[in-house]
Amino acid sequence: MAGAGLRAARGDGVSEAFDLARRASYGFFFRENLRFSDTDMVGHINNVAFAALLESGRTMFTHRADYPALPEGVQMVMARVEIDYRLELHWPGQVDVGTRPLSVGRSSYRLGQGIFRGEDCVTLGRTVLVLIDRATRRPVPIPDAQRDWIAREITSPPVPAILFP
Amino acid sequence: MAGAGLRAARGDGVSEAFDLARRASYGFFFRENLRFSDTDMVGHINNVAFAALLESGRTMFTHRADYPALPEGVQMVMARVEIDYRLELHWPGQVDVGTRPLSVGRSSYRLGQGIFRGEDCVTLGRTVLVLIDRATRRPVPIPDAQRDWIAREITSPPVPAILFP
Amino acid sequence: MAGAGLRAARGDGVSEAFDLARRASYGFFFRENLRFSDTDMVGHINNVAFAALLESGRTMFTHRADYPALPEGVQMVMARVEIDYRLELHWPGQVDVGTRPLSVGRSSYRLGQGIFRGEDCVTLGRTVLVLIDRATRRPVPIPDAQRDWIAREITSPPVPAILFP
Amino acid sequence: MAGAGLRAARGDGVSEAFDLARRASYGFFFRENLRFSDTDMVGHINNVAFAALLESGRTMFTHRADYPALPEGVQMVMARVEIDYRLELHWPGQVDVGTRPLSVGRSSYRLGQGIFRGEDCVTLGRTVLVLIDRATRRPVPIPDAQRDWIAREITSPPVPAILFP
Repeated sequence: MAGAGLRAARGDGVSEAFDLARRASYGFFFRENLRFSDTDMVGHINNVAFAALLESGRTMFTHRADYPALPEGVQMVMARVEIDYRLELHWPGQVDVGTRPLSVGRSSYRLGQGIFRGEDCVTLGRTVLVLIDRATRRPVPIPDAQRDWIAREITSPPVPAILFP
Repeated sequence: MAGAGLRAARGDGVSEAFDLARRASYGFFFRENLRFSDTDMVGHINNVAFAALLESGRTMFTHRADYPALPEGVQMVMARVEIDYRLELHWPGQVDVGTRPLSVGRSSYRLGQGIFRGEDCVTLGRTVLVLIDRATRRPVPIPDAQRDWIAREITSPPVPAILFP
Repeated sequence: MAGAGLRAARGDGVSEAFDLARRASYGFFFRENLRFSDTDMVGHINNVAFAALLESGRTMFTHRADYPALPEGVQMVMARVEIDYRLELHWPGQVDVGTRPLSVGRSSYRLGQGIFRGEDCVTLGRTVLVLIDRATRRPVPIPDAQRDWIAREITSPPVPAILFP
Repeated sequence: MAGAGLRAARGDGVSEAFDLARRASYGFFFRENLRFSDTDMVGHINNVAFAALLESGRTMFTHRADYPALPEGVQMVMARVEIDYRLELHWPGQVDVGTRPLSVGRSSYRLGQGIFRGEDCVTLGRTVLVLIDRATRRPVPIPDAQRDWIAREITSPPVPAILFP
């Protein structure tokens, strides 16, 4: 992956290894229902619900059977999220939340996400997750098993895509 | 309503036409994901999330293709809900929300619901919905088309059960 | 307390020691904001948000400084909630959630709640809480210290009312 | 915009007119309760709840008495949000959500936000809001009255700070 030809320019000038807005960029999707309680008085799905949908896809992504278990005493927490709202959503319906790692650092890694209704990308998400010590709440290095798994996900081709559940 | 043989005693002495805790009592199910944001600091699915799951099943039940459209100027609103928590739920997973009318009155009707994880009934819900005028916010009689549809759902056998989506 | 003059008849024939719909019946209030994300596409505060508001008042009630700490190894969980929606709420605004015990049994006790906007009672809540063993998840007897505290709250006059925070 | 002396460097190189992490940078605060239902199974306030808290502060900011009413037929919608999680929050408690415009363009403007617990900044938020036509859902120019109001808020000194409610 990661070739210059696939890089998409972001507004702030950071280039990314794949186009988060293309369904074909993802190999893992989690299908979510829009709930009536996700709507707001504007009549559409409230922006806060998108954060819940992205979290749902993200937590299921790292809950996959092949994701290496973290050692005792550490946990992943969110350091940052960016959400780009591209299209409005209306109840009822379902969306597919695609999730894929973008990069990995010493104690943190970045996930890219796209919420799709059919082929249409309605929302983009970018999340920075940090590994911390449960007791001290301070960052610790990501173990090699997780780092290797993440690195493989960054570069592996997304085909065939898997849709859960 | 239904035969006495099907009536199940509630704690408060009100008998019901079918056993809300049996999966076989329902003909309509809506499958919902448990979201990570549905959990609370106790470690299980928060009681508020059950209200959202019941609403999700309820709104999809009345959103079915064959449910007769309400006339302009009126809408259904909730007057009362009762939720019995029987089993705890933990993330991740899916539940099937069964929904079926229990009785119908002049301006209101009652829905019975069961949240199931496989065959296990984890939660019961009973909801009173009232038809109101959008402008005055006062109760109005349920039109015959809706009343007939609801009455048919109360007495129709729940087989074969339909699972959405 | 408990005089026949104060008893209010419920729809199901159960009488209660005080009128849950009167602001003067409560000695503890927790003031909550209505959030924009509490609204739904009907344009009012969604019914699920009321469950969150009631929980907020309830958990703050038992979080008060003088509530006796539970022993290790047990916790209170919800067994049942009933919510009566009397008036619609609209964003923005604040509500005062009044909470007061109604009765206490061997392993469980009942809380009565009223959500008020000024003097108007917009919602009633009745909750059954059960004390369970954290490991077995089975009911256990409520310790005397908690039972005495609850019994005192049931019968103590609600004046002067305290508003938090 | 503001003096260079007030500019704070962001991680991505964009400078801002004031330091979003300093309580003294804001002139408008909205105080919010942390709700029990805002917690998650990690034991802290869930990241999705922060999106709700930021929205709560943001919607109250534009709901102020002196904010010029938008013309019929247009509405503000979110185009983007960035949330930086700096400190964990635990139930119960209150936070003060500070909100202040950062910049204004033709059809959109940016809001900066800080969630504070006392003097500690627990979370930063940056939101892009776009004015759209209600019918076409396409961006339209921000009217002069709103633009002037926003521009004044960007440059006006934040003292004395106002805390709602």
